[in-house]
Amino acid sequence: MKIHDRAGFPNPARIRIVLAEKGLDADVEFVSVDLIGAEHKQPDFLAKNPSGVLPVLELDDGTFLSESTAITEYLDNLDGNPTLTGKTPLEKGRIHMMQRRAEEGLLDAVGIYFHHATPGLGADLQAYKSPEWAGRKEWGERHRDKAVSGMRYFDGIVRDQPFVAGERFSMADITLFAGLMFADAAGIVIPDDLTSLLMWRAAVAELPSVKHRSGQTFEIGDLRRLGF
Amino acid sequence: MKIHDRAGFPNPARIRIVLAEKGLDADVEFVSVDLIGAEHKQPDFLAKNPSGVLPVLELDDGTFLSESTAITEYLDNLDGNPTLTGKTPLEKGRIHMMQRRAEEGLLDAVGIYFHHATPGLGADLQAYKSPEWAGRKEWGERHRDKAVSGMRYFDGIVRDQPFVAGERFSMADITLFAGLMFADAAGIVIPDDLTSLLMWRAAVAELPSVKHRSGQTFEIGDLRRLGF
Repeated sequence: MKIHDRAGFPNPARIRIVLAEKGLDADVEFVSVDLIGAEHKQPDFLAKNPSGVLPVLELDDGTFLSESTAITEYLDNLDGNPTLTGKTPLEKGRIHMMQRRAEEGLLDAVGIYFHHATPGLGADLQAYKSPEWAGRKEWGERHRDKAVSGMRYFDGIVRDQPFVAGERFSMADITLFAGLMFADAAGIVIPDDLTSLLMWRAAVAELPSVKHRSGQTFEIGDLRRLGF
Repeated sequence: MKIHDRAGFPNPARIRIVLAEKGLDADVEFVSVDLIGAEHKQPDFLAKNPSGVLPVLELDDGTFLSESTAITEYLDNLDGNPTLTGKTPLEKGRIHMMQRRAEEGLLDAVGIYFHHATPGLGADLQAYKSPEWAGRKEWGERHRDKAVSGMRYFDGIVRDQPFVAGERFSMADITLFAGLMFADAAGIVIPDDLTSLLMWRAAVAELPSVKHRSGQTFEIGDLRRLGF
């Protein structure tokens, strides 16, 4: 298998954590995509994923899978033991529900803020992500507020249970963790009073599958400091 | 089980088709939510689903599940025969990938157009969906264009295979069908040259699980004609 992605970015991080959780690291070759130069918006990449986003899984027979939830479903079910996406109907339902809430309410909201209300990743990519229009900045700023509301919601969730979808670490935790990583890079700070969320995050950061990857999670922040 | 929804709207239609496909109609009591009056944005409903969207599945023990993909995962796996969400890892991956593309590229794009660039469902709901801001209309209109691009993409997909994720009807077809239903209501017409998509749609509309529900699929259009 190959993964077309870029280390350090939130959606690639989701799949790298999945690979580590499932013990599949050694089976994968990583192919780096020039995300800052908008390589993923050019025809060669769009033939792999017409949505033009990372990451993309390429199977040995040339099949391409994209969308993080879809890649996670595939990888998690390979061994017949879907620990990350759920084993029972109710686990599957709960995990997909919370995953989608983390995606829409945090990860995607941070992305809209980042690409609309900040310089994002520079001119090459912004031309695709957010061409100029009158309401651009206001739209972005609303999504910063939405992301902070999302943080507050998840603080309530992990106050009463160890993980986002219940007693076990799942795809929903991975999405939330990636969302908070992106929030860091975009300069959206977790409010101090969200102590349950902060404790959950510290605990997840220590999981072997996450810690193993943590050295790769600060590239956006580095770019932002460099003035992109 | 109870389903809190409103007949005739796109996301409720997704789950009603799932219930019919799985033969679960008789096990469900439908509870109608006053969507036009924004009942789903009030505290009683937000306690069931903090995201404030329909539909919501209520299990007999009081558990609530929301998000159409999550409810579909639950219902489809109850009988141990997940025909709609996939049986093998690759089927699961493909179905989730295509489902997400149909959601983001069509159903959600139509929703953004409908709530931002048209009067939507009237004043009560619009206050929640799309408060006034400078770029509102332009943002909506961009998403009409995105929805039409989505239609063109799916026309290419169903040119070479009978269903959206391959040889079998799945959750991805249901999302695309609901997206086209919403496009009708919002006044976004499928371009005449997308003959494969039009043929796919006509075939899906004749499936028993879909046809059974089709009398309930025009409420938004009716409302629009009434001037909402």
